[in-house]
Amino acid sequence: MKQKIKGVNGERELVHLFWQNNWTAWRIAGSGSIKYPSPDIVAGKGLRKIIIECKTTNSEIQYFSQKEIDDLFFLSEKIHVEPWLAIKFSRQDWLFIQPNYLNINSKSLCISKKEIEIKGKTFQQLLI
Amino acid sequence: MKQKIKGVNGERELVHLFWQNNWTAWRIAGSGSIKYPSPDIVAGKGLRKIIIECKTTNSEIQYFSQKEIDDLFFLSEKIHVEPWLAIKFSRQDWLFIQPNYLNINSKSLCISKKEIEIKGKTFQQLLI
Repeated sequence: MKQKIKGVNGERELVHLFWQNNWTAWRIAGSGSIKYPSPDIVAGKGLRKIIIECKTTNSEIQYFSQKEIDDLFFLSEKIHVEPWLAIKFSRQDWLFIQPNYLNINSKSLCISKKEIEIKGKTFQQLLI
Repeated sequence: MKQKIKGVNGERELVHLFWQNNWTAWRIAGSGSIKYPSPDIVAGKGLRKIIIECKTTNSEIQYFSQKEIDDLFFLSEKIHVEPWLAIKFSRQDWLFIQPNYLNINSKSLCISKKEIEIKGKTFQQLLI
């Protein structure tokens, strides 16, 4: 439950960041619990529209389920929006990466703090 | 509170309808209470994206606040999406109308059950 509240607070923080930067952004009600594919956040400016799966973690590696990633790709193709992962590692700002950059092994999809620092984008870079 | 639950159930019903018809649709978390302009539902298929303000009523006339309509127009221009109003009058299916069809008088923005039956669209017509 604590992790869920932390997750929601993280999503709210991101939504504020978008609005402060002249984008629109909303949290999706029930994302993670409704039966339909859904991101945590949808954001947009002009013709650009993005969908985001958000994670906050105290670990050095962030894992994603196959379903989370499949849903992002499915939605991205279906409604022509950009799929993004947003990860907030401890004592760091949000970093963003597209799901095709995840490491795939037999058990999971993941990315480490070090890798996203190299391959990912900052919030300001995401907006460009 | 009863009206709010009825409203949320109405929104959920609409979301199901969209998915059953091969569209994506999500409810926006906190719409009506968050400080940023937000619709009740965002829906899309292919390049088409729509934002919807939903109302369920036992009355013969549905009113909207100036802010609700201003927000829809603001978002529509900002992120190039179609603004729609969805109204479910008692013992009727959902009907849809764009906000520029509302009647404007000194006090309010509204539309009657009779008018929306003539000028509005059914769910299936909305999808075309």
